[in-house]
Amino acid sequence: MGSRTTILGLGAMGSAITARLRDTGHDTTVWNRTAAKTAPHAAAGSKTAATISEAIHDADTVLVVLLDHASVQEQLTPHAAELTGKTVVNLVTTTPNQARETAAWAADNGIAYVDGAVMAVPSMIGEHHARLLYSGDEHAYDTVRPILETLGTAEYAGEDPGLASLKDMALLAAMDLMLLGYVQAIAMMRTTGTPAADTAAEVEAWLAAMLPQGRELAAIVDGGTYDTGGQSVDFDRFGIQSLITASREQGVSAQLLEPHRKLLEELAATGRGDSDWIRIIERLTIQ
Amino acid sequence: MGSRTTILGLGAMGSAITARLRDTGHDTTVWNRTAAKTAPHAAAGSKTAATISEAIHDADTVLVVLLDHASVQEQLTPHAAELTGKTVVNLVTTTPNQARETAAWAADNGIAYVDGAVMAVPSMIGEHHARLLYSGDEHAYDTVRPILETLGTAEYAGEDPGLASLKDMALLAAMDLMLLGYVQAIAMMRTTGTPAADTAAEVEAWLAAMLPQGRELAAIVDGGTYDTGGQSVDFDRFGIQSLITASREQGVSAQLLEPHRKLLEELAATGRGDSDWIRIIERLTIQ
Ligand SMILES: NC(=O)c1ccc[n+]([C@@H]2O[C@H](COP(=O)([O-])OP(=O)(O)OC[C@H]3O[C@@H](n4cnc5c(N)ncnc54)[C@H](OP(=O)(O)O)[C@@H]3O)[C@@H](O)[C@H]2O)c1
Ligand SMILES: NC(=O)c1ccc[n+]([C@@H]2O[C@H](COP(=O)([O-])OP(=O)(O)OC[C@H]3O[C@@H](n4cnc5c(N)ncnc54)[C@H](OP(=O)(O)O)[C@@H]3O)[C@@H](O)[C@H]2O)c1
Repeated sequence: MGSRTTILGLGAMGSAITARLRDTGHDTTVWNRTAAKTAPHAAAGSKTAATISEAIHDADTVLVVLLDHASVQEQLTPHAAELTGKTVVNLVTTTPNQARETAAWAADNGIAYVDGAVMAVPSMIGEHHARLLYSGDEHAYDTVRPILETLGTAEYAGEDPGLASLKDMALLAAMDLMLLGYVQAIAMMRTTGTPAADTAAEVEAWLAAMLPQGRELAAIVDGGTYDTGGQSVDFDRFGIQSLITASREQGVSAQLLEPHRKLLEELAATGRGDSDWIRIIERLTIQ
Repeated sequence: MGSRTTILGLGAMGSAITARLRDTGHDTTVWNRTAAKTAPHAAAGSKTAATISEAIHDADTVLVVLLDHASVQEQLTPHAAELTGKTVVNLVTTTPNQARETAAWAADNGIAYVDGAVMAVPSMIGEHHARLLYSGDEHAYDTVRPILETLGTAEYAGEDPGLASLKDMALLAAMDLMLLGYVQAIAMMRTTGTPAADTAAEVEAWLAAMLPQGRELAAIVDGGTYDTGGQSVDFDRFGIQSLITASREQGVSAQLLEPHRKLLEELAATGRGDSDWIRIIERLTIQ
């Protein structure tokens, strides 16, 4: 009881987190479904628990670093009563609603709950450019903050427990689409024998120069009128169609570019051809 | 005849190019369909031509800065004989095959042809970070290079006249998908009241840090075996599905992310679940 920290899950991320806590002078208790993974941590000074109950009993703060939401439900639900009065920090990657669901369960059982999202790979844990987002119970967050701050840069996103996950997912979605940009460019240039590495180097320099355009688009979105006289829906339709045609001419499917064209067509069909093209964002709202 | 340069088209780009050539001591002759646009250039020292024939007659080098491929065909085709023996540099944005078509027409008519792609807005013309790509007749390119180099950084991409356009289109496609990444993230975060500007600032910093991942993906593509043990198709399917679910939970359509999911499903269905996820690039090749 007391000043120990319990870590549930010793996969790649749980192991890195446990090692970091130990290295910064924290007493740690670890549990893992496959018990063999606790051995190196025991050797390095962590206390190992044979059961989740034992691990929970050992500490006021429980960090959960299992695989996914299903494993969290499976492992924590039977131990609700034992967790009452303690603080659970859930670092598992989940959707916002899954985080909200776990938070509601925690509230029902008198468990202080903080949901986290780790925007870093295990090797970065402990470095300041490892970014960890948190949301949920602010008082609980403040209590465990000294522990969380050893893991990387800690950011509190707000009381809605889904916020950390949402921000995580939003940034991952942006990264995913950016990487698809590399894929599309590499595929197009490969048709002329250009190595992917050459195209990637070009794309990297080009995108670095173009990144600030996101800010300009955001200003138009926040403005809300979509009438700045910048690139219009109709102009953009022509541009996207050229990209699609160019891709197909080279024997490369344009399916990654199709959703953009479709959104523009919808805007044009509803009389929005003169609006700034970024108005496509309105059509992403599910009615 | 001789050392003058003719510019056909005085829209935003043609005007900027004409002004830059004048400022660097070149004698320029200009023509524009709507004659009124020649007035400021006449006042600034350019010679104006009342007809295309007159403009062509004036110079050995003709820069074409009309709107699109259709306007190039409409305006140049009737003047093929007058262009014989001269050099045409076509700076109009076209698809690679359109560039190849114009090059073939030029070859048939004894016209030296260079196709260009302007990767800059008019206000950047003349600055070294304005990048202009060229492809086609290398001898002709070398001849007009002193003129082209005044417009920005000039790069010769190769003899295939479609190459400059292709590279242009590939980079624009990458930029487009990156900007859709901003759109997706902004749309998701707006559901919690987060201003677009705040999300864009986050996305910008995040993408800047993630840009080098493109190089790693390219190395896997060039390797060709897709078995590096990095992020697999099956792992990525789980990740993308989480993003799609998170987006929909917030009331935001996931249509921008769907093509990625679909490509992964296709790979998984053909027994490629263990491959590196970047293998989706293979499925972009039109059979
Ligand atoms: N690795 C990263 O780069 C990274 C980055 C950001 C976020 N994350 C997130 O961090 C979390 C952990 O990731 P990881 O990389 O550590 O994963 P990992 O190496 O695959 O480890 C998974 C862990 O979850 C345990 N587990 C899985 N299913 C379980 C179940 N039903 N019951 C009990 N335990 C179960 C595993 O136990 P066994 O040893 O018994 O299998 C193992 O301890 C995930 O949500 C991941 O999305 C990871
Ligand atoms: N602006 C940019 O940021 C930018 C960047 C990169 C590449 N580009 C490319 O540069 C080219 C020119 O762009 P821009 O910005 O200068 O366009 P713009 O301002 O719209 O000007 C279009 C020009 O094309 C002429 N034109 C259009 N249709 C014609 C026809 N059928 N016959 C004769 N002339 C015709 C117009 O003449 P009138 O005055 O008579 O209408 C005008 O001179 C385009 O291919 C564009 O994609 C532009």
